[in-house]
Amino acid sequence: MKELFGSPGRKSGLILRIGQCVSAAASIGVMASASGFSTTTAFCYLIASMGLQVLWSFGLMCLDIHALRFNKDLHTNIIVSLFVVGDWVTATLSLAAACSSAGVMMLFIRDTNICNEDLNLSCDMFQISIAFAFASWFLLAISSYIMFWLVASI
Amino acid sequence: MKELFGSPGRKSGLILRIGQCVSAAASIGVMASASGFSTTTAFCYLIASMGLQVLWSFGLMCLDIHALRFNKDLHTNIIVSLFVVGDWVTATLSLAAACSSAGVMMLFIRDTNICNEDLNLSCDMFQISIAFAFASWFLLAISSYIMFWLVASI
Repeated sequence: MKELFGSPGRKSGLILRIGQCVSAAASIGVMASASGFSTTTAFCYLIASMGLQVLWSFGLMCLDIHALRFNKDLHTNIIVSLFVVGDWVTATLSLAAACSSAGVMMLFIRDTNICNEDLNLSCDMFQISIAFAFASWFLLAISSYIMFWLVASI
Repeated sequence: MKELFGSPGRKSGLILRIGQCVSAAASIGVMASASGFSTTTAFCYLIASMGLQVLWSFGLMCLDIHALRFNKDLHTNIIVSLFVVGDWVTATLSLAAACSSAGVMMLFIRDTNICNEDLNLSCDMFQISIAFAFASWFLLAISSYIMFWLVASI
């Protein structure tokens, strides 16, 4: 199996996982602290999806740290196949959550005047949270492509 | 290069392209005929994104028909690499459009009572259009994975 940038058990892979974990956690933190998020299903789904991504990326981050510390090889077919399925499912759910929230946000800002009228809604916080969600998805998408490439090139 | 189900220049590949093209065109048709879609940015973006997908899938469908008719081989590195980039970009845009519209639809139906109050909005038509968009994305995602697998396994 090839050794690529970002593959499991390498420092670049660990950095990607840390980035995913931190930006997903930031997205949850900002959204949960914004007032009025619970009235919109898309924002609740964003929190749920980012929660799943934090769990997944944190798990793989720990595995990467373990592999780096004890010099273990994670490049076996079964492990990388598991990673690729998990990465793709999580990445699709994250993109879906970020896009549905972005769609609602466009409705709030451009199509209607809800953000200006309803001062209970923290629209700025929603936007920051969605930006973090997109950043998190982007980093996860890089990991997913690397994993898929590793599996396909066996 | 491997010969896989759905690879370019095969009947299965052609069927996938026809499916993508038909469901994306159906999504545009249903959305464009629904009253009140133009007031929501997400629905306009859905039409634009599905339009791009119709163009892309129709082009590749014609190429598949040409290859099948004249027995041409489309399995060269450059052609498949171009297909993989185009497929992934289109699939990501389609998923983004379908999800942002679905997020707005959830807001209309579950979080607020807009669909019942504003009788100018054809909410049923919006939902049918979004369902077609998801079907179209799903078929494109299958093609994208096959293309990526073909490129990675060179």
